[in-house]
Amino acid sequence: MEDLNQQITVAARPEGFPKESDFQLVSTSIRSPRDGECLVQVIYLSVDPYMRGRLRDVKSYAPPVAIGQVMVGRVVGRVLESRYEGYREGDFVFGDLGWRKYGIAKGQSLVRINPQAAPISTALGVLGMPGLTSYFGLLDVCQPQSGETVVVSAAAGAVGSTVGQIAKIKGCRAVGIVGSDEKVRYVTQELGFDAAFNYKSVDNHSEKLKGLCPRGIDVYFDGVGGAITDAVIPLVNVKARIAICGQISQYNLETPEMGPRLFWHLIVKRAKMEGFLVTDYTERREEGLRQLSEWVRSGTLKYREQITEGIENAPRAFIEMLSGRNIGKQLVKVSAE
Amino acid sequence: MEDLNQQITVAARPEGFPKESDFQLVSTSIRSPRDGECLVQVIYLSVDPYMRGRLRDVKSYAPPVAIGQVMVGRVVGRVLESRYEGYREGDFVFGDLGWRKYGIAKGQSLVRINPQAAPISTALGVLGMPGLTSYFGLLDVCQPQSGETVVVSAAAGAVGSTVGQIAKIKGCRAVGIVGSDEKVRYVTQELGFDAAFNYKSVDNHSEKLKGLCPRGIDVYFDGVGGAITDAVIPLVNVKARIAICGQISQYNLETPEMGPRLFWHLIVKRAKMEGFLVTDYTERREEGLRQLSEWVRSGTLKYREQITEGIENAPRAFIEMLSGRNIGKQLVKVSAE
Repeated sequence: MEDLNQQITVAARPEGFPKESDFQLVSTSIRSPRDGECLVQVIYLSVDPYMRGRLRDVKSYAPPVAIGQVMVGRVVGRVLESRYEGYREGDFVFGDLGWRKYGIAKGQSLVRINPQAAPISTALGVLGMPGLTSYFGLLDVCQPQSGETVVVSAAAGAVGSTVGQIAKIKGCRAVGIVGSDEKVRYVTQELGFDAAFNYKSVDNHSEKLKGLCPRGIDVYFDGVGGAITDAVIPLVNVKARIAICGQISQYNLETPEMGPRLFWHLIVKRAKMEGFLVTDYTERREEGLRQLSEWVRSGTLKYREQITEGIENAPRAFIEMLSGRNIGKQLVKVSAE
Repeated sequence: MEDLNQQITVAARPEGFPKESDFQLVSTSIRSPRDGECLVQVIYLSVDPYMRGRLRDVKSYAPPVAIGQVMVGRVVGRVLESRYEGYREGDFVFGDLGWRKYGIAKGQSLVRINPQAAPISTALGVLGMPGLTSYFGLLDVCQPQSGETVVVSAAAGAVGSTVGQIAKIKGCRAVGIVGSDEKVRYVTQELGFDAAFNYKSVDNHSEKLKGLCPRGIDVYFDGVGGAITDAVIPLVNVKARIAICGQISQYNLETPEMGPRLFWHLIVKRAKMEGFLVTDYTERREEGLRQLSEWVRSGTLKYREQITEGIENAPRAFIEMLSGRNIGKQLVKVSAE
């Protein structure tokens, strides 16, 4: 199988906002799996905000992707050939194979997906890392109580859309901050958020939030940071909890942005702010998935996937996701199901 | 007793750093206590960083002091006349009587001090609000574990000096950030901190901290904020805990200062930052005092008091405390013990 594989490598470290030319489509051969390995045909690959960090040449919780290497990322695929006793040809799995059409992985690094239980794509979204991020970030870090007000930034994205719905399930008032009027309609009319606003069409975020949160803000789930967060923090209630999940407004800045110093508000409000990573909840993964699956099956928890076709379009899908073009989970479809 | 009382009123809202002319010494008469009240002769009055907030015309956790009103604050004094059955003449008490030589208070608002147990002045310091702030802020908010590194800003002040010593008692490495070489000597040689540095004589706070904290920073107890905190936060370890106790570097700024956005570090480090007020621990006051008293009696917990004589000098003592002139707890002695 020579040169049948296609993969996207990192051609250059992005300066500021990534460009398509920072990536390169490369054709390669496919080798056969060795003992303990599987050959996987990728069906969906995931583009997520955290990947911007992997393109940066700084130490973080994971090492950066080297120039010339295949872009990292989780995929859903089909086992084509198995030399690992846990899988056979035709099994659906997910794993961290990166942006490629075919990949070899150790069988033990793959996780089985039951295609009868839910669409396989959900293993990258509502029943995958983003869904679990919402679940543990909201419920464990923020401990929302019935009747409290939960504000979510990036509320129409894969994580934020689930956070707001879980807040509703727990009896909270869910208020979303989004970047388009279409997203406002999506989260309020389709997902059942109590309120939302388009930060791009509102000058005074703080005044807007005050109006939408008449009892103040008890929980803030932040994926954005920057000016949005500057507007939220002064409005939090006593004993508020703030989960820092992402800071997407900052990821594409070459020079770190300055902002107002906000820690004084944490004293006055005796508020807690906590950063978290879903990888710290690996041991509770089954619990989270069981609950999320139940909510999805019952229709309580809705989700949307935006699917871009073709591995050659993965860089564009990634860049558009970073600029907030997507509603719900952004995926790239690489092969037919 | 006409015009025998003296008190300090707020003459003007300070702009930036408070000036002595923002306060006024006023002579008044002393009335007799009514049923349920005590007349108290103030012996010590306390000047604390939080009082700068009370001078500001903004809503906070307590209302501002009105212009023309006596400056608020806790005092230790002697009951001169009691019409409350709980106290008799000669009893020592503390209460929130403000900056005055004599004051009338409802008996139930006063708390008895046992002058045999410890010097009465300690009820405003190591065995009072500052000591309890250190105790609950460090032990409850930060949960330091033996072997961890605890960094304390304003480490030679009433709160910071106690925080570092409790950290040592709990088996931690205590590292202080202070504003003079004399303070470095005080916290390392007298109080037993493992290390400290004078931020005014160090250009690169971050490099200095790295050297003094070879295993990173697990706990940061912050009374200062601003550039000091900017240097600490990027150095915290995974699962670090940051207690925001005060932000004294910011209290005297007329225009809010901008600073680098730091929340991204909280994600990478899965760190928690929490503001707190000692008033939220009122129910656990006895527990805290019992432990602090035991440490003081055994000599494990040391303290220093810096005493300015004369109520007319209270504004100056307050201003000097805000500029970091004091070591340990700054008090003003108003009458003989």
